Amino acid sequence: MPGEPTQLRADARENRDRIVAAAREAFAAEGLDVPMTAIARRAGVGVATLYRRFPTKEALVREAFAEQLAACTGAVHRAAEDPDPWRGFRRVVEQLCEMQARDRGFSAAVLTAFPDAVSVDEVRAEAEGVFAGVVERAKAAGALRPDFSTDDLALVLMANNGLVADSTDAAVAASRRLVAYFLQAFRARDPLPPPVRLGLRDALDRPPRQSF
Amino acid sequence: MPGEPTQLRADARENRDRIVAAAREAFAAEGLDVPMTAIARRAGVGVATLYRRFPTKEALVREAFAEQLAACTGAVHRAAEDPDPWRGFRRVVEQLCEMQARDRGFSAAVLTAFPDAVSVDEVRAEAEGVFAGVVERAKAAGALRPDFSTDDLALVLMANNGLVADSTDAAVAASRRLVAYFLQAFRARDPLPPPVRLGLRDALDRPPRQSF
Repeated sequence: MPGEPTQLRADARENRDRIVAAAREAFAAEGLDVPMTAIARRAGVGVATLYRRFPTKEALVREAFAEQLAACTGAVHRAAEDPDPWRGFRRVVEQLCEMQARDRGFSAAVLTAFPDAVSVDEVRAEAEGVFAGVVERAKAAGALRPDFSTDDLALVLMANNGLVADSTDAAVAASRRLVAYFLQAFRARDPLPPPVRLGLRDALDRPPRQSF
Repeated sequence: MPGEPTQLRADARENRDRIVAAAREAFAAEGLDVPMTAIARRAGVGVATLYRRFPTKEALVREAFAEQLAACTGAVHRAAEDPDPWRGFRRVVEQLCEMQARDRGFSAAVLTAFPDAVSVDEVRAEAEGVFAGVVERAKAAGALRPDFSTDDLALVLMANNGLVADSTDAAVAASRRLVAYFLQAFRARDPLPPPVRLGLRDALDRPPRQSF
């Protein structure tokens, strides 16, 4: 029948979408350690079907987090383009932490090292390069403390990942307070206006001031 | 035989010590979720023996962490007795975070709510009361920002607990950097000397200053 191939392709796509949605939920709830069999069960497909679509967990992770990784790199690129270097830096820290507070899976995807996840690592390395530029620019503007290290971003994300709350709203609220503390610590002191030579002799020539 | 009761008591004590040591290791490595059966296996005793000694997991947790809880309350009490309010506050935050970085089980014991762990909760509540005094004193001295909340201690400990490193040394080093950032954010700006009324009329009577 002429309709059959289309129908098959539609079924395959539906299976695939169901697997990706189930993987995203499972990773978000339990982190990346969740076994492939549990994902197949959650998706309502056989393990063989799962492995036919996604031969490795890395392939599944990449597909499940494509959107979050894009959001992450988007935030870093917007920071680099912000005309105000400190605002760019501040916003990317705030946005990454908020995404992380809303989705534990995102956090796992961004923080976990995958030995075989070449494509994930490439995206991450590119975003790290852009972030390093954001950091340099904010330092050059005198807005970010000079001893801030790009490694501190992992410190922030790990710390933020440690927050445990009863609800997403509470997690986001706690994360905002944490990030605000970090940003206060990261901010360089406001730069002074340039130094001025004062006429010391003039001051010495005057009688000392007295109150009336 | 006359030696028998002593021998029995010595065996019982040895069993007990082995169980407590195994529980401490298991909690430190895997957190408090580790099942009682796994602890019995690790200690090399039967599950019945384990439950005869410790009828609830809470009793085992209390025994396993008696030392850490004492160290924790000791640090808080020393902070309250420090003649310098800011130094007291700073040191207790530093010490609690270092203990936590060295021992994941400590962290679980201090941060986890036990529905039935009355004695753990009592110790914790008492330490929290003393810490609230440390905070008030540091605020009254103008050293700690007035909007610091005692709830922020849990924020710090959770954030610190989120740090993951390959070794204890690396975990302690990361924790130190994290804590240093927190302390910079928590520090109040240095208080100003008291305001002074200046003689405005006197200033107006003089000719404006000029450089030579």
